[in-house]
Amino acid sequence: MTSLEELCTHLPKQIGADMMALVEELYPICRSITGEGLRATLQIVRRTIPLVIHEVPSGTAVFDWTVPKEWNIRDAYVANSRGEKVVDFRRSNLHVVNYSVPVRARMTLAELRPHLHTLPDRPDWIPYRTTYYDQSWGFCLRHRDFLALKDDQYEVVIDSSLEDGHLTYGELHLPGQQEDEILLTTHVCHPSMCNDNLSGIAVLTSLANALLGAQRRYSYRILFIPGTIGSITWLARNRQGASRIRHGLVLAGVGDRGAISYKRSRRGDAEIDRAVMQVLRDSGAQHRILDFSPYGYDERQFCSPGFDLPVGRFSRSEYGTYPEYHSSADDLEFVAAASLEDSYANLMRVLFVLESNETFTNQNPWCEPQLGKRGLYDNPQQRADWGQIRLALLWVLNLSDGKHSLLDIAARSQAGFGAILGAARALEAAGLLRRQL
Amino acid sequence: MTSLEELCTHLPKQIGADMMALVEELYPICRSITGEGLRATLQIVRRTIPLVIHEVPSGTAVFDWTVPKEWNIRDAYVANSRGEKVVDFRRSNLHVVNYSVPVRARMTLAELRPHLHTLPDRPDWIPYRTTYYDQSWGFCLRHRDFLALKDDQYEVVIDSSLEDGHLTYGELHLPGQQEDEILLTTHVCHPSMCNDNLSGIAVLTSLANALLGAQRRYSYRILFIPGTIGSITWLARNRQGASRIRHGLVLAGVGDRGAISYKRSRRGDAEIDRAVMQVLRDSGAQHRILDFSPYGYDERQFCSPGFDLPVGRFSRSEYGTYPEYHSSADDLEFVAAASLEDSYANLMRVLFVLESNETFTNQNPWCEPQLGKRGLYDNPQQRADWGQIRLALLWVLNLSDGKHSLLDIAARSQAGFGAILGAARALEAAGLLRRQL
Amino acid sequence: MTSLEELCTHLPKQIGADMMALVEELYPICRSITGEGLRATLQIVRRTIPLVIHEVPSGTAVFDWTVPKEWNIRDAYVANSRGEKVVDFRRSNLHVVNYSVPVRARMTLAELRPHLHTLPDRPDWIPYRTTYYDQSWGFCLRHRDFLALKDDQYEVVIDSSLEDGHLTYGELHLPGQQEDEILLTTHVCHPSMCNDNLSGIAVLTSLANALLGAQRRYSYRILFIPGTIGSITWLARNRQGASRIRHGLVLAGVGDRGAISYKRSRRGDAEIDRAVMQVLRDSGAQHRILDFSPYGYDERQFCSPGFDLPVGRFSRSEYGTYPEYHSSADDLEFVAAASLEDSYANLMRVLFVLESNETFTNQNPWCEPQLGKRGLYDNPQQRADWGQIRLALLWVLNLSDGKHSLLDIAARSQAGFGAILGAARALEAAGLLRRQL
Repeated sequence: MTSLEELCTHLPKQIGADMMALVEELYPICRSITGEGLRATLQIVRRTIPLVIHEVPSGTAVFDWTVPKEWNIRDAYVANSRGEKVVDFRRSNLHVVNYSVPVRARMTLAELRPHLHTLPDRPDWIPYRTTYYDQSWGFCLRHRDFLALKDDQYEVVIDSSLEDGHLTYGELHLPGQQEDEILLTTHVCHPSMCNDNLSGIAVLTSLANALLGAQRRYSYRILFIPGTIGSITWLARNRQGASRIRHGLVLAGVGDRGAISYKRSRRGDAEIDRAVMQVLRDSGAQHRILDFSPYGYDERQFCSPGFDLPVGRFSRSEYGTYPEYHSSADDLEFVAAASLEDSYANLMRVLFVLESNETFTNQNPWCEPQLGKRGLYDNPQQRADWGQIRLALLWVLNLSDGKHSLLDIAARSQAGFGAILGAARALEAAGLLRRQL
Repeated sequence: MTSLEELCTHLPKQIGADMMALVEELYPICRSITGEGLRATLQIVRRTIPLVIHEVPSGTAVFDWTVPKEWNIRDAYVANSRGEKVVDFRRSNLHVVNYSVPVRARMTLAELRPHLHTLPDRPDWIPYRTTYYDQSWGFCLRHRDFLALKDDQYEVVIDSSLEDGHLTYGELHLPGQQEDEILLTTHVCHPSMCNDNLSGIAVLTSLANALLGAQRRYSYRILFIPGTIGSITWLARNRQGASRIRHGLVLAGVGDRGAISYKRSRRGDAEIDRAVMQVLRDSGAQHRILDFSPYGYDERQFCSPGFDLPVGRFSRSEYGTYPEYHSSADDLEFVAAASLEDSYANLMRVLFVLESNETFTNQNPWCEPQLGKRGLYDNPQQRADWGQIRLALLWVLNLSDGKHSLLDIAARSQAGFGAILGAARALEAAGLLRRQL
Repeated sequence: MTSLEELCTHLPKQIGADMMALVEELYPICRSITGEGLRATLQIVRRTIPLVIHEVPSGTAVFDWTVPKEWNIRDAYVANSRGEKVVDFRRSNLHVVNYSVPVRARMTLAELRPHLHTLPDRPDWIPYRTTYYDQSWGFCLRHRDFLALKDDQYEVVIDSSLEDGHLTYGELHLPGQQEDEILLTTHVCHPSMCNDNLSGIAVLTSLANALLGAQRRYSYRILFIPGTIGSITWLARNRQGASRIRHGLVLAGVGDRGAISYKRSRRGDAEIDRAVMQVLRDSGAQHRILDFSPYGYDERQFCSPGFDLPVGRFSRSEYGTYPEYHSSADDLEFVAAASLEDSYANLMRVLFVLESNETFTNQNPWCEPQLGKRGLYDNPQQRADWGQIRLALLWVLNLSDGKHSLLDIAARSQAGFGAILGAARALEAAGLLRRQL
């Protein structure tokens, strides 16, 4: 069994390339919140980690919602009177509005036009649109191509089905020493876009894979779910179980080249919030901390007032702040192996901090213990960072009064978490600290 | 019955001009903390609102104080040996020190000089001085005129009386659905000065007039009282009743052209403090928030430690910070109909916020409710501000856990109060929120 | 009996010169954490104040530590083959590493070199080094002299002894009206350096001398102790008694020309912290407030988690931030009589604030009392600062609800402590305040 510490310090060599390869493999698949594309995606993930696949029938009541009909699509196009396909699903699955009802009709451009969506400001990009809860249909296309459309009689085909079926999601439970869980979740419902959301799938798959063989203090609950309806469905089926979640993260948009951003949980200062902030501060890299707001990804559901779970969101560039968001420009070029790896590494460090954040009590609380006679005061290895290490020892001794966790001590001392943890371990080995149970 | 919301959104057309007309009518009257000028002022206000006039006998003990003798004045002047009036009360009632005892004497300039008050830095302005609690007398005059006084024998006349009588104040109680009261008060004891204090009288009269015909959740306690001794007298006579005051505002100096300033209550974060700050923030206009201090107007008495009522002060330019303060330059030119109207409008919005600040509980607290099926998620009217409205809906749902009032939600979300209230109403209509009683 | 207020307002004329003279007298003595130099120092202090001298035998267990053997030194030198003393303890007692074991040997430069310590960056200064807890020896010398050493056979003599004996410290207990104590402590273990630590000895001697004849509300516990082992020893012998300490200050480095710095207690907002900050703010002089950290002087022991005493540290330039620190450059030129006096004056003001910080209750809490009839509202002496004084009266009345001490009132009102105290006294004399017991 590997320790999480080793997983942090020895990243697998090919981890960035491996994640990028998974993104590439998943890229062509037409996913949605239900259907065969979603199933195919989960099966590919399942080659790496033993996901349990859940199938929830259409029509199932999940809190205020209902599991929708299952949507599948085989083909879709718009062809002009000469039979030329001017819009073709086979070239990009973004071309069809996701969840479009079946259509087979001939119509003029004027009749077709209300069903066409473009980005006039970005004439070379195909937008991404959905119509989950209106029975409707449409096509998305490059504005440049839209302008080239002639007055003509068009053949419009959407060979889709919207029928009773299932909502599919993947779940992995990794038991730890404690029943308390760390929740890690990502959405799996977007078609051919890489940052949103193949990056989350790739990073979460690699994290889960590493955790499989690791010593775990916490149990882990790992979810690959369609956005919104997926988290609502999971929460409705696990209303009691959700109370075991002690810390949680929603992963979304973790592959672009921007800096990491973290959105606090509704509570604002939960341990997960403080752990992520500590890791990002310790990283020395630029990053942004965002206050909670009830808009965004599945943190909206986990942080709804009835649950109020300590779940934050880990992203790089925030959704909606970059022009490529929800368009064909969120492609294989838009994400980078180095970014996936950086996200993975920071997330692993967050898990490591959570796993090793304990509270100790100083066994010699009256005055300082004599560190020198225990070989803890001098600098035998002539380390350049000895001043910092000794200060960390003193901080841990001073604040280990049963009321401060190591994360609290790191925050108050402005030391790195690693220095504080190292100090605690040395002091525990010397019999000066006792772990609080 | 009009709602306070309508009173906010549809200001009476002539409201600024009406208030200015009242200021003009009241301007010539020589008011003091007791006496006929004060009575005449309250009678004029009573033409608009059904004030109850209270008369409290001189000598009445009111906490540590005693209601003083009643002061009245008919005439006052200083005449030179040629019989020319060099200082004349009939030209400005500021010329006599307010509460001067009767005088009828001949004296040299040297004898007179200790009784003369001027503003050497503002040689054209007459200062305002009082001598409520010393039995004394004096004249105030322009420094320029003072310098022109010759060595001469002067006739000095103050035809005043200081005798047992009454302290007069006006009170209006407007019952609401609740016994809990909103206190609105202004002082009515200053002679011919417009900002301090005719502006307060005019704005409070208009507010009270509007409230008369309005639907009221709270009861209203509206006081027109002489400064300091008036609030002490009212509190002494209403020691028990004062505990019904849930929110209160002292209005003072609300007609000048400066920005609005708000002085917090002693508590610092009472609901009235947060309501005023929300309204001023929402207004987008420049404004200033001042911390509580025990100096100022009648908030000193309402915020004395035995009462500690949540009463703040609403002003425009702070007293003492503008040179015209307490001088003849605080005249009809110094105040503006637009400023009176702006004060009125902001105060009405504060009352509206207090009246509509309720706490709701989300009836679907587990995950978000499906807004779409209730027509609350899409943007059917294609409103440009839809993003804000939808975000307000989500904030209200997320924070309506019984612990956050709408004002709390507006503050945390940084949304306007109107957006939050609108969202709460829409959600309540959809059965998603329930009002907490 | 003098009051502390008089001690603050009338500093003895020669106080700076007197303290400087004590520094000069103590300068040549070779002090350490035990031994005759320490005893001689305490005897000199005892000429001024009736210190009780404690002798604690070597080997005594004090918490996790043991009182070390007593170290004494008579002579030490390094002589070259021509008998010339190239390093000579008689010229500066910094030349020998403090607590060096006896040595009498001949050796080559190569053999000697590991025992020589210099400051290459400051070639004209002798560093200060100690070896309390390793049985070792060494010499400190100017880097310039070190470079001039030739390959030669050297005679190395350290005529010291390290034997069972005692650890010596001085204690003065001054009983006050209350058993609760103010702790004032300084370390007395450094050889010939002036800021660290003769300045502390001089200032604490003068403070104690002044307190001897003063009216004291609190009892005072004044300690002259060797650093670290001294405070640990005192705490071990006074574990119960330490709980009487209500406020405490460690004095260290109070004679240099830098601005005053104050390091907060572990609690961060103890009354001592707020008292020092008030005094420094009131002084108008530049100063720095440092957060607690578990490194530094004896505050480390007093603020260890088992004790967590409200003890801060009062210094001028922080140790380690000036190049002269722990070297021969911390000499008689490095400290100034004016700095010693300024430290003394500020410390006395801190004591005065602590002694006079009481909580009162307003006996007329309903509305303001009528100050005028008690001669407290007007400005009879025509004082220029009347506005401030009157405001202080109002603040004290407003906040004297039994929950705010005078220090709380000074902080909230941003008035000086003196103004607030003066107001409280005037109000108490007028029967408007009652002291809370």
